[in-house]
Amino acid sequence: MSGWLKIAGLGPGDEALITPEVTQALAEATDIVGYIPYVARVAPRDGLVLHASDNRVEIDRSRHALEMAAAGRRVVVVSSGDPGVFAMAAAVFEALEAGPDAWRNLDICVLPGITAMLAAAARAGAPLGHDFCAINLSDNLKPWALIEKRLRLAAEADFAMAFYNPRSKSRPEGFTRTLEILRDACGPDRLILFARAVSTDQEILRVTTLGAAVPEMADMRTVVIVGSSLTRVIERDGAPIVYTPRSVAG
Amino acid sequence: MSGWLKIAGLGPGDEALITPEVTQALAEATDIVGYIPYVARVAPRDGLVLHASDNRVEIDRSRHALEMAAAGRRVVVVSSGDPGVFAMAAAVFEALEAGPDAWRNLDICVLPGITAMLAAAARAGAPLGHDFCAINLSDNLKPWALIEKRLRLAAEADFAMAFYNPRSKSRPEGFTRTLEILRDACGPDRLILFARAVSTDQEILRVTTLGAAVPEMADMRTVVIVGSSLTRVIERDGAPIVYTPRSVAG
Repeated sequence: MSGWLKIAGLGPGDEALITPEVTQALAEATDIVGYIPYVARVAPRDGLVLHASDNRVEIDRSRHALEMAAAGRRVVVVSSGDPGVFAMAAAVFEALEAGPDAWRNLDICVLPGITAMLAAAARAGAPLGHDFCAINLSDNLKPWALIEKRLRLAAEADFAMAFYNPRSKSRPEGFTRTLEILRDACGPDRLILFARAVSTDQEILRVTTLGAAVPEMADMRTVVIVGSSLTRVIERDGAPIVYTPRSVAG
Repeated sequence: MSGWLKIAGLGPGDEALITPEVTQALAEATDIVGYIPYVARVAPRDGLVLHASDNRVEIDRSRHALEMAAAGRRVVVVSSGDPGVFAMAAAVFEALEAGPDAWRNLDICVLPGITAMLAAAARAGAPLGHDFCAINLSDNLKPWALIEKRLRLAAEADFAMAFYNPRSKSRPEGFTRTLEILRDACGPDRLILFARAVSTDQEILRVTTLGAAVPEMADMRTVVIVGSSLTRVIERDGAPIVYTPRSVAG
């Protein structure tokens, strides 16, 4: 048997944002592996085994997927968004590198998806239309001091910034601190966008300023985008358009 | 008539990477507007008018698209990749803001796509698996000094970096200088990935180090990804896997 492992991105939620490449992989799979709410997005069918696991067991889940592929199964590891952006791809490669040599020559590939910041940016306009950075605000896997350093340098570089995992119940203080640092570095008038669960029926978009933003506007299903100094709002009936122009005066 | 304007991303090249949402918009359109090679990716059909234009006329093209939508046409502006990342969405909103008030209430939206850096990262492994930034290296619309400043700050922040438009015939010196700055800031052993025309039959992937990189490895169809200090290579039969682990030691 020739097994394989595909690490696939399901996009932000709407089925119309799943690439045909990923749909095809799901149709050919024998096993789906992932975090419970993402596996729940895959339709059950005869011959398909769903392996849903809880958060924070990414390495165990990766090993299990690699073992099954090595045993000849056709395995899809699912992430929401893009698997390469704060999602499962890096975890699978960590497990692969630490595992048996035979895993290195498995048939393995990553299938990209629409990551949350791109879905959020599209919904709001084009806030990432100029240079930008993406930062995971969770300090589960890195020291908080590094996050603060990156926030200050990103502000100095005048990047637009996209933040993943801004705020969880177990560490609410980090995002409070993030807003303080950015208000200090960028001023109270800087635009900030809170985009929750974009493309699902729980979608909420809110555009405000750093001065008016409060931590409770974000949760773990929210992507936060802070504009650069040039990011602008076009007011109109309905939701405003937020965009960053392409040009910077010389 | 109720016209609309959708600004859509065609992904990096492979049709299997175009979202169903974009395919649907193309099927409903009366007019397709965009840069010649991107419009060429849309299949002609009865009732569909293709408006292909040359590079560097983004604002004219945007105005034309807005005028047609205001006149009741169903218009899709196409970009490769994602329209919100160094592509047409910001240009359309610039034209909209500068145009007649009536344009503000057009039915207009952005349909995200798989941007080049995500396709390139997926092909190589997961080099953007930790915090990263995206920088357009073209100095057509911003001063070169700002690009240099952002490169130095991004290196200090230890971001992985994705570079769009690294090198054109008209300005080959910028990318030469970029490599010098990064060698100085990150050292010669830092990993660099050149990903050309990913998902097309002209795809070329090359993984090397800043010390061994030469400017000629990039052209305008190449996305360049420079790893963070933690980005690693897993050697194997065939192409190596390049990835950035999720953890940073505290």
